[in-house]
Amino acid sequence: MYTQTFAQFKKQLGQLDKWLGTATDYAKSKNFDPDVFVTLRLAPDQFPLARQVQIACDTVKLGAGFLTGKPMTAQEDNEKTLAELQARVRSTIALLDSLTAKDFEGAATRVVSQPRWKGEWMTGADYFVEHVVPNFYFHLTTTYALLRHNGVSVGKRDYLGVQSKRPAAA
Amino acid sequence: MYTQTFAQFKKQLGQLDKWLGTATDYAKSKNFDPDVFVTLRLAPDQFPLARQVQIACDTVKLGAGFLTGKPMTAQEDNEKTLAELQARVRSTIALLDSLTAKDFEGAATRVVSQPRWKGEWMTGADYFVEHVVPNFYFHLTTTYALLRHNGVSVGKRDYLGVQSKRPAAA
Repeated sequence: MYTQTFAQFKKQLGQLDKWLGTATDYAKSKNFDPDVFVTLRLAPDQFPLARQVQIACDTVKLGAGFLTGKPMTAQEDNEKTLAELQARVRSTIALLDSLTAKDFEGAATRVVSQPRWKGEWMTGADYFVEHVVPNFYFHLTTTYALLRHNGVSVGKRDYLGVQSKRPAAA
Repeated sequence: MYTQTFAQFKKQLGQLDKWLGTATDYAKSKNFDPDVFVTLRLAPDQFPLARQVQIACDTVKLGAGFLTGKPMTAQEDNEKTLAELQARVRSTIALLDSLTAKDFEGAATRVVSQPRWKGEWMTGADYFVEHVVPNFYFHLTTTYALLRHNGVSVGKRDYLGVQSKRPAAA
């Protein structure tokens, strides 16, 4: 389930990459700077689009690090354009491509902790179900909502991507 | 993982119930009708808040039905007030309370199909990872975004709820 869910995250990041491309095309068709999207917010005290994309990427990256035990190097959050955000998304996809099912063995029972938790910890299973999955989809959907609210033509199929349907019996 | 994720859905639905309560309190404090929230949209061609809540509930309910093989009765989508939407959320929580870990045995290999799929089908595992989880969080987060965008004071902790942290070693 860990392997399959991270494969799903990879698919969703691919969809996110496409939405950012659709936003760029929309801005060009309306003759405004596509990078206006980068600083838009749904509420004045909520993070702007750039930060939503950065956190979506980091949730996947740090989640993969905690659940596989592989060290993950921090990235600077310095993206200022949609193209730079797309590069950030693609680097996260490349990272997921480097992981194998074997890397996730024992993920459920790993001890996950962070300095600000002051010694408290979570099992890998709890961390995955209660933190990684809801947080990833939160920042992914908030990015989608920001684009949708501001006129970009994305729909539910763009959100979900292609589903693994099997053919009908002959 | 199925059992744990549906327990997480139950927790998230409990949080959603609280956000709707916070929205009601906010409206009262500003002297406007709380049920104004029910029809708000983030984009003119996106579903309003009521439909977002209904689909979040149905995604969990129908998902549980497909993955356990238990028949689920359809509900009318006739909620017109925040209080009625809260009742819908609570009825979904009650449904989840009626399911046991045993009910989810064999979920991964169940055959999932719907009339509009014209004979095509998905495995329970694919349906869960590619449809149920992303769709549930999509409609949950869109509801949150709608409230946040319209001034309701909800934050990330209200979204995630309490995490299962374990105490530091003595």
